[in-house]
Amino acid sequence: MNLLKSFPPEPWFVTESEYEKDALERNATLFFLGNGYMGFRGGFEEAEADDGTKGTFVNGFYESAPQVYGESAFGFPDKKQSILNLPDPTGLRIFLDDEEFSLKAGRLLEYERKLSLKEGLLSRTLVWESPQGRRVKLLFRRCVSAAREHLAVISCTVSRLEGVQRLRIESCCKINAAEQRKGPADPRKSAGFAHAPIVCLEKRVKDGGAVLLQETANSRLQFAEAVENSVGGGLVLEASEDRGGEIVFSYSGIPFGTDEVFVLNKYIAFYSSIEASASDLADLAEAEAVNAEKSGIGLILSEHMEAVDLFWNRADIRIDDEALQQGIRFNLYSIFQSAGRDGLRNISAKGLSSEGYEGHYFWDTEIYVIPFFSYTFPETASRLLEYRYNILDKARARASVMSEKGALFPWRTINGEEASAYFPAGTAQYHINADIAYGISRYVKVSGDNGFMTDFGLEILIETARFWMSLGFFNSSGEFRINCVTGPDEYTAIVNNNYFTNVMAQYNLQYAAESAESVRQNAPEVYFELSARLGLAQNEIESWKAAARAMYLPYSSSLCIHAQDDTFLDKEPWDFSDKSLNRHPLLLHLHPLVIYRYQILKQPDVVLANFLRNSSFSRIGKMRDYEYYNRITTGDSSLAPCIQSIMAAELGRPEEAYKYFMRTARMDLDDINSNAVDGIHIAAMGGTWLSLVYGFGGLRDLDGELSLCPRLPAAWGRLEFNLRFHGKELNVSIRREKTVYSLTDETGSVTLNHMGTTYTVQAGAPVEVSMKPELKGVIFDLDGVITDTSEFHYLAWKRLADEMGYTFSREINERLRGIGRLESLDIILESSGAELSSEERFQQGELKNGYYRELLESIKPENVLPGISELMMNLRKNGIRSALASASRNAASVIKRLGIENMFDCVMDAAAVERGKPDPEIFVSAAEALGLLPEQCAGIEDAAAGVEAIRASGMFSVGVGPAAGAADWAVDETSELHFETLLDRFRRAAGQ
Amino acid sequence: MNLLKSFPPEPWFVTESEYEKDALERNATLFFLGNGYMGFRGGFEEAEADDGTKGTFVNGFYESAPQVYGESAFGFPDKKQSILNLPDPTGLRIFLDDEEFSLKAGRLLEYERKLSLKEGLLSRTLVWESPQGRRVKLLFRRCVSAAREHLAVISCTVSRLEGVQRLRIESCCKINAAEQRKGPADPRKSAGFAHAPIVCLEKRVKDGGAVLLQETANSRLQFAEAVENSVGGGLVLEASEDRGGEIVFSYSGIPFGTDEVFVLNKYIAFYSSIEASASDLADLAEAEAVNAEKSGIGLILSEHMEAVDLFWNRADIRIDDEALQQGIRFNLYSIFQSAGRDGLRNISAKGLSSEGYEGHYFWDTEIYVIPFFSYTFPETASRLLEYRYNILDKARARASVMSEKGALFPWRTINGEEASAYFPAGTAQYHINADIAYGISRYVKVSGDNGFMTDFGLEILIETARFWMSLGFFNSSGEFRINCVTGPDEYTAIVNNNYFTNVMAQYNLQYAAESAESVRQNAPEVYFELSARLGLAQNEIESWKAAARAMYLPYSSSLCIHAQDDTFLDKEPWDFSDKSLNRHPLLLHLHPLVIYRYQILKQPDVVLANFLRNSSFSRIGKMRDYEYYNRITTGDSSLAPCIQSIMAAELGRPEEAYKYFMRTARMDLDDINSNAVDGIHIAAMGGTWLSLVYGFGGLRDLDGELSLCPRLPAAWGRLEFNLRFHGKELNVSIRREKTVYSLTDETGSVTLNHMGTTYTVQAGAPVEVSMKPELKGVIFDLDGVITDTSEFHYLAWKRLADEMGYTFSREINERLRGIGRLESLDIILESSGAELSSEERFQQGELKNGYYRELLESIKPENVLPGISELMMNLRKNGIRSALASASRNAASVIKRLGIENMFDCVMDAAAVERGKPDPEIFVSAAEALGLLPEQCAGIEDAAAGVEAIRASGMFSVGVGPAAGAADWAVDETSELHFETLLDRFRRAAGQ
Repeated sequence: MNLLKSFPPEPWFVTESEYEKDALERNATLFFLGNGYMGFRGGFEEAEADDGTKGTFVNGFYESAPQVYGESAFGFPDKKQSILNLPDPTGLRIFLDDEEFSLKAGRLLEYERKLSLKEGLLSRTLVWESPQGRRVKLLFRRCVSAAREHLAVISCTVSRLEGVQRLRIESCCKINAAEQRKGPADPRKSAGFAHAPIVCLEKRVKDGGAVLLQETANSRLQFAEAVENSVGGGLVLEASEDRGGEIVFSYSGIPFGTDEVFVLNKYIAFYSSIEASASDLADLAEAEAVNAEKSGIGLILSEHMEAVDLFWNRADIRIDDEALQQGIRFNLYSIFQSAGRDGLRNISAKGLSSEGYEGHYFWDTEIYVIPFFSYTFPETASRLLEYRYNILDKARARASVMSEKGALFPWRTINGEEASAYFPAGTAQYHINADIAYGISRYVKVSGDNGFMTDFGLEILIETARFWMSLGFFNSSGEFRINCVTGPDEYTAIVNNNYFTNVMAQYNLQYAAESAESVRQNAPEVYFELSARLGLAQNEIESWKAAARAMYLPYSSSLCIHAQDDTFLDKEPWDFSDKSLNRHPLLLHLHPLVIYRYQILKQPDVVLANFLRNSSFSRIGKMRDYEYYNRITTGDSSLAPCIQSIMAAELGRPEEAYKYFMRTARMDLDDINSNAVDGIHIAAMGGTWLSLVYGFGGLRDLDGELSLCPRLPAAWGRLEFNLRFHGKELNVSIRREKTVYSLTDETGSVTLNHMGTTYTVQAGAPVEVSMKPELKGVIFDLDGVITDTSEFHYLAWKRLADEMGYTFSREINERLRGIGRLESLDIILESSGAELSSEERFQQGELKNGYYRELLESIKPENVLPGISELMMNLRKNGIRSALASASRNAASVIKRLGIENMFDCVMDAAAVERGKPDPEIFVSAAEALGLLPEQCAGIEDAAAGVEAIRASGMFSVGVGPAAGAADWAVDETSELHFETLLDRFRRAAGQ
Repeated sequence: MNLLKSFPPEPWFVTESEYEKDALERNATLFFLGNGYMGFRGGFEEAEADDGTKGTFVNGFYESAPQVYGESAFGFPDKKQSILNLPDPTGLRIFLDDEEFSLKAGRLLEYERKLSLKEGLLSRTLVWESPQGRRVKLLFRRCVSAAREHLAVISCTVSRLEGVQRLRIESCCKINAAEQRKGPADPRKSAGFAHAPIVCLEKRVKDGGAVLLQETANSRLQFAEAVENSVGGGLVLEASEDRGGEIVFSYSGIPFGTDEVFVLNKYIAFYSSIEASASDLADLAEAEAVNAEKSGIGLILSEHMEAVDLFWNRADIRIDDEALQQGIRFNLYSIFQSAGRDGLRNISAKGLSSEGYEGHYFWDTEIYVIPFFSYTFPETASRLLEYRYNILDKARARASVMSEKGALFPWRTINGEEASAYFPAGTAQYHINADIAYGISRYVKVSGDNGFMTDFGLEILIETARFWMSLGFFNSSGEFRINCVTGPDEYTAIVNNNYFTNVMAQYNLQYAAESAESVRQNAPEVYFELSARLGLAQNEIESWKAAARAMYLPYSSSLCIHAQDDTFLDKEPWDFSDKSLNRHPLLLHLHPLVIYRYQILKQPDVVLANFLRNSSFSRIGKMRDYEYYNRITTGDSSLAPCIQSIMAAELGRPEEAYKYFMRTARMDLDDINSNAVDGIHIAAMGGTWLSLVYGFGGLRDLDGELSLCPRLPAAWGRLEFNLRFHGKELNVSIRREKTVYSLTDETGSVTLNHMGTTYTVQAGAPVEVSMKPELKGVIFDLDGVITDTSEFHYLAWKRLADEMGYTFSREINERLRGIGRLESLDIILESSGAELSSEERFQQGELKNGYYRELLESIKPENVLPGISELMMNLRKNGIRSALASASRNAASVIKRLGIENMFDCVMDAAAVERGKPDPEIFVSAAEALGLLPEQCAGIEDAAAGVEAIRASGMFSVGVGPAAGAADWAVDETSELHFETLLDRFRRAAGQ
């Protein structure tokens, strides 16, 4: 039973309303608190045993240990880095006479643990009866200050004592590091240490408080931890030093009346040598705790809540589903709590909720988290990227060890050195370089902060571009290829030309060249200094452009999809019915060599690449890639569903988008992957924001301009969020009937594109756009819709059939409607039981076409079918675009003879598409060529295959005549195609 | 300075004639002694410090330890296995009064250490003067009995004492395990243990001798070690137990006259729980040592030398180069010393010379060692393969862990469990399965031991065939493909369709099917039992055949070579000039991801596959593969040069073969790879035998018949070896002028094929075959040699050129000689500055051919050029075959019109070859079609490109006319081509 799911959920709270003693460890993750600098797991104050619930972390504060390999090789990292579980300062012991309060004994009469997301406070209220019948009510509150990053406060309120002679409270401060939580053979847990990781350098203990100065054994980092205890009324807690590895501050006194309360406030401060001089740490920590005690808990909490308020003002996303709303807020707040804000630390894959993944930083930051901060707290996005600049020298050194030029960022790290001990899914993920370049682009284009580019960004871009030039090569055909890499999908490894890697490397190279040239123009002195220091010449920039242009992207022309890599599509298809294979997550049940051998994915990285560089790819291509790779994607990665959701939304499948979104929004609250115990999933949390804003909001922005295409799933009536863009804050409020764009700032404006139309939103002047679908384009088939060349086709086929001795009839002819030339010939051949070589087949197709063209010579304007000219005139008058989508290769010459070629904005014929009807390609591509979405268009067809293609494209379908099959609107002949009726039918189908 | 190279080398000895104090560790490898069951490194008896020279091993006796991974995953082996360096029993301490003999002090007046390969004895003689001027002569001798596998003897003779009052000798027996020699990050060394690997269970100590019963801490194996010391004269050495971790037996007495000698013999026996019951071990070891002591050293040594004698009688290979002869003998003897002979142990990659590679068994056994034993000691080959049968159940379990059916043998192991901690170059080397199948085939086909097949072989073949069926799959084109594997070349990893793997898996499948059907026919009751037990049905056997037939072998039609795998040829070419890359061995200087990315090889596994399945591939194909892959093979693997040598010999390049042979024959004696310190290279040693017998001897035998094609390098006058085949022993004696085949048995016969001719060698009736090359085939060009169609070609080109308006002249026409149609057109186009599409190009080629064929209609028998008919008649009369090799596609119709089509045994025209002249393909393939070697053929050509092709093919070249270029024999016109002159010129060119 998961009480966190309690219905109705309170969207601003995460609540444990009964004591879940079997889920303590998992809930310690969910009730973690942090402020980017430090974090605490939600373990109880009174807990003693090392039950995995305690965790005290300073972001980026790590210990190292030798990395051991069964068989080592050159360039393997020789040191592990693990975020250190610091000595626990949270402990409190409460004695009712000789009975110690513990949930492991006695009886709980009341219990509630609650995280207030709105306030950023964790509280626990309980009424406990001791085994001997004494009673007490306890309220524990915790805050890790969002205003003072080195400070945390724990407050314990004791009341309603019954049957107690004397109350004793001990406030504890551990001296030795806590145990690292660990697990066997699961990379998502920490590996732990074989040695004692810290040494205490100095202890300052006085009544009421203490300071410890400590140093790690191997990494040689120092930190100071200060504690001040305050009980008010001039009382000072008596200190007893180093009792069993802890310092204890105790209060013991006569109890008070049942109406009175006793309060202990514990102020905890940390400082580390990462951000301050080692010699100052003890003083700094002590001052922080002492000042906090002087300020008092009221001030501390109000400062904190003010900062949390600001967060929600900027970052909250509102929908009208309470359970999802709770999930969204929990996710966004967890990111806020975990992201480093000083350029010296980053955001770990498990945030500050645990030591899972050793507290390492991955690509999750740039791909999943940077977009969120860029649009809400750009200053935090900037600091996260500044961290990358601060480790650039280590990335240069790593590239050199790898025999490459430029810089190679570590796949996973804390201190900037590569810490992956399994290179096929570690160092081989070179795409981290391009991901960082992408993150820089996100931040700079959204914030407009060009200073970041000159101060930090460009140097990173130059060194990463250099790396790609060194890693890849121009092959003998002049293609730029990148071999022996691993893409984000870790279910394959060490492949050639991973699509994601090449797409992103291409962007890195382009963006580096573009940025270098822009800085040279706009900040020549910066450019001069940098290019001189790095030895950068123009021809090097030209080589980046050349490589980007020549970048090879693997493509299967038989499947019409991008190949995940050079050989992915040659792999054995996965057997979804084989129980011995389908055990998830696969990596815990199958040897990597088994997983690598199949077409099975942890995450669809082709789809991710298509999303990240959306505008570089055709809609039909993205559709096919999505369909192929989605089918073979397991649910094994927490990074996948949000991306699947975004692409489903783009492709006009909001319900599919909603289904995937459900997996991402409450991933940890519902513990969907059964591993919340090891920490939250930061990337999936960032993905929640991406799904909402890029998916349902339809935001696209890679070129630095805002474009939105909102699509609500049926379950929602609204979606509302803010986007901070170039210093202005845009509020986007999406309802079923309209979307309202407004500025929260008092001055200025933001320009955006909504579904193809550009709007400028001025301060104080919201823009309302109707969400009712409007017909913007009509796509016509030729034969049987515009004119009736079908008789010519019949006659031409007949002549060929007679000459060749094939069976042919009107009946067979009916089957050729909407079908291409060679496919038609195949149908005739099949009926005749004849077989041709591919050359003969081609020749006879040409022959028939010759006959047909002869007949076409006679076509004239009067051959336009009834009603069509009027319809087209009306479309033009009303600003609705028209396109021709014909399976014929003679379409252009036919409409010329018909005298209507000027009525079409676009002509798509069979030569322009890879797959004929009933594949939706020709309609999807025609709409795209018109600059429209399928749902803004209607398609008109007389053949069943054509109507099928229109429906598959997502358009409103119009069928003419008896052979058209099931269309949204069926007419008997073209004369019925009145403009007003079409508009009416279109609107009705859209549910208006 | 390497004294082992001392010239003139003594082919029966390895001698260290000066004390090489800087090479003690390396020389401890070279002076190792073993008998397949146990081995001792050559460390000095008096050595005390753990200087890496001591090593005491029982083959297959190992300790295990947890295998640790930085990031582990499902199916990774969790235990290491390391051959254990046992407690040292060899120690002796000699005191001259109070001065202890040690080479680290005093002065050496005489010194020699010598391994007698002939006798299998190691001796060390020295005269030492102590720091205080005392003198002694010492002789140490060692023997690890080839007759009693549990027994070793050390004998120490003291003489010529000067200035000594009292002699004291202590014989020591360590109790604790010796240190494992180890090194950082080098897989060729052992990783050592973090724990004490053995526990002493029982100690029996008496004066003169002791027995220790010990057990390993983790692997829980037991061994007993017994020592008996004997000094003769009724004296018994006094025992003192456990003094500083050792048992010491001491003698102390008044010295004797300078003419007298004092001798201590130490008998050492080992028994382990691998081959005997744990409760018997102590008794068995004690009995072995006591009995040996009773037998006395004379009998022990004479038994031993008798066994060694037998070895040399069967296995010695004689050549007339003393340094190489020494290398050959050292190598063969090292294999003899290292190979297990009881079915319970195998032969480690470093033999019994060290704990390098942890004492593991690899594919080296089957591919490099089994052929040698199959032809010399088939019973040993049988036992080595029986070991594989004994670990079959573990191989089944491993296949199951890997989600596969059948059995997967471990890439490296002692106890049968996979012990590779780096799967990309470990478990992914699935080819081990096929290598074992190949080894079985070698042994069974050479020995004729069908009992092995029914008892052990078939079951292994069935389970390995099943594994391949499960690992690979039929793709949509019906090809059987095997993805995600690593071939023997570890400079690439995890690739699809590694050529070696697929070629060998194909053999495994074929051979399993063939063997199953043969056993079903010949031993139906065995087949019935086995097929019932394993659930084997006929349709499964049919599926093996189908997969073998459909096996996909990657091929590049542009390079006309086999591709090492699906993407190898797409990799970046290696830059041999880049100093930062070219540091060897690459794996110690470059990260695997760097090495994997390039076309660079550790060993050419395509070439190895071509050798192992020689008859399955065309000569031109093997030639091209060899040339391509040889060029990109580093010298980093000790397993490569022997294979390169064999293929060079096959391709008629004996001097290149010799160059590679030099790298393999003295690899360890000359320490070519600078790592003899870590142990000998067993595979290279087996490779020495392969190079001699398969390379220079030209033995081919995969189909179970002996075929030889001897080719001596210029430096040698003879090569002589024995081949035991189906129970008979054939002596092969190759001289420059003749090869003599004789039987060493007194009855029976052996049938063999010598360069295309079959001989049956009867006992007592040696067969002598001349080595003088004999002309066996003549290969004719058509145009300008058989007839002069060149004028027709000229006229046809002229007509085309005139019609198309191309520039053309007699001069341009000259450049078309011997060149194919399309290439000729290109030359004309180039001269005319014209460009054609590939379709036009093809059409115009057809056009010209039409004109040419029109002209050809007129050709008649009288158009055969002068002298040709006579020459062809003479060839036919003398049994010399003829072939036509023409670049024309009309060759067949021309010779028909000329009336000479019956004179040719074979017609090769342009359609049959991938590459035209000057590529040698057409000549090489014509000779092959005639069943001849190129050196048995002459080729006749009138064009320079043709003569170039003949020369490149390795044939004797005849050039007709002025345009023929530099041929071995040039004539002005065909009338000069007299048969007798041709024979004479051919013989002269062959140096006769």
